[in-house]
Amino acid sequence: MTARKIDGKAIAASIHEEVRLGAARLREERGIVPGLATVLVGDDPASHSYVKVKRRACEEDGIRSFHHPLPEDTSRETLLRLIRDLGENPEVHGILVQLPLPSHLSEAEVIEAIPPRKDVDGFHPANLGRLGLKGGEALFAPCTPAGVLELLGRIGVGIAGSRAVVLGRSKIVGLPAALLLLRNDATVTLCHSRTKDLPAVTREADILVAAIGRPGAVTADMVKPGAVVIDVGVNRVPDSSRKRGYRLVGDCDFEGVSSVAGALTPVPGGVGPMTIAMLMKNTLAAASRG
Amino acid sequence: MTARKIDGKAIAASIHEEVRLGAARLREERGIVPGLATVLVGDDPASHSYVKVKRRACEEDGIRSFHHPLPEDTSRETLLRLIRDLGENPEVHGILVQLPLPSHLSEAEVIEAIPPRKDVDGFHPANLGRLGLKGGEALFAPCTPAGVLELLGRIGVGIAGSRAVVLGRSKIVGLPAALLLLRNDATVTLCHSRTKDLPAVTREADILVAAIGRPGAVTADMVKPGAVVIDVGVNRVPDSSRKRGYRLVGDCDFEGVSSVAGALTPVPGGVGPMTIAMLMKNTLAAASRG
Repeated sequence: MTARKIDGKAIAASIHEEVRLGAARLREERGIVPGLATVLVGDDPASHSYVKVKRRACEEDGIRSFHHPLPEDTSRETLLRLIRDLGENPEVHGILVQLPLPSHLSEAEVIEAIPPRKDVDGFHPANLGRLGLKGGEALFAPCTPAGVLELLGRIGVGIAGSRAVVLGRSKIVGLPAALLLLRNDATVTLCHSRTKDLPAVTREADILVAAIGRPGAVTADMVKPGAVVIDVGVNRVPDSSRKRGYRLVGDCDFEGVSSVAGALTPVPGGVGPMTIAMLMKNTLAAASRG
Repeated sequence: MTARKIDGKAIAASIHEEVRLGAARLREERGIVPGLATVLVGDDPASHSYVKVKRRACEEDGIRSFHHPLPEDTSRETLLRLIRDLGENPEVHGILVQLPLPSHLSEAEVIEAIPPRKDVDGFHPANLGRLGLKGGEALFAPCTPAGVLELLGRIGVGIAGSRAVVLGRSKIVGLPAALLLLRNDATVTLCHSRTKDLPAVTREADILVAAIGRPGAVTADMVKPGAVVIDVGVNRVPDSSRKRGYRLVGDCDFEGVSSVAGALTPVPGGVGPMTIAMLMKNTLAAASRG
């Protein structure tokens, strides 16, 4: 078997187009321009480049972007005051604080200062808690796992009644992915570094979500024939043939897993583009609710 | 094999004793008397009897109880105002709103009005969300699943690295039990009504938590030999030999499961007594933090 390659880039492009149309309609019908505030503390080059990509997506999708770059030594009080102001600003529908924060600031405290209705990253504990509650209103799901579910839905994978295994339990990907799969009636198993006989567990999966952050962690023998494998890992491996000296790979041994799985996301071009698409979708949803 | 019977009553009694001593120490050393407010709307006899049992436990454990019985037709505004007042009352460290509420009131709205630091039932979404976050501060875990974990810990079951299967995904038991097991490094699978081939899934479990609410739902063929089975179900079955006309049974076929499991909680006398013990423990913790 050779796995079908899931084109996350094309699906993400379609979501951006939907957001663009939705934002235009919102402006025409209700005079609302969706707004996203980005807060960036310090000079981490990777964080700067992530925020830049997000702001460019805003521009392309018809979302107003409010950028707040702050110096590395910003005090807790200054940052919390800014977040309070953004929380009260009616033109700002979504607030994104780029992580990681400098170590003198508490990420938990800062995230919890964002009003849950503007928490378009879906990291506020109240939003995470609501994810698990069938029937409860989940305001926002974190963008990467929301992107995983969106991918599964758009390629027509039946989630209800399936066995889903999530590798990795981070609050940003693994845990919310498990809660979202559960919400969609999968029988969900969460694995992590302490799991014993991992291949036996992962081979039970009709849907396998890998979010470990280790290249080659998922090999062909860990995959049930025909399973849908979503590779959330983004890892740099040295590659002297590339100008920048590295290339990006996922958590899966792509060739090996391709020979067993029914469908597989590539890295790059799989889940990656979905994350920003879902951030735009969440921001539009926040503006529409407002 | 005949399963060891786990005596939840004895373990709960020991926790009550620990709370009693802790409350006495708190009073002596810091002049704080732990206080629990119970809010009961309407005339449901079962709810009245639950609240009565909780208030009696308060009295025995040295916790001051503030009881607020309200009529069935209490307005949303009145109830929210009461909760706000209790939230601001420094003598009240824990607030318990007995569920279910009459249908004209939104349970979600009422629960979310409780300050998370006084949410000793652990039902606030922010507390539930924090449960899943390793390293994040979980203020309170819901009492029944917290009781399940406390039982496992006190009888020396190794959770880390084990495979745990939770049957049922309610926000009060199944879901938080899964999050707590995950927090303790189990590989956790959550099953529910949409799970296919349930016996195959449950037979993987070293620790099986049954929280479905259907007598006889868990049979011997669903249990791995030697597994620890925690039966959270409390079901009434007709029994003409009893004065009250029924008896209480759990979700397990007790005889059958006993012949396969390594250890099993009885119903009654297993998880049941732990729930109120954990409520007292949570209230003491709230007062100690305060």
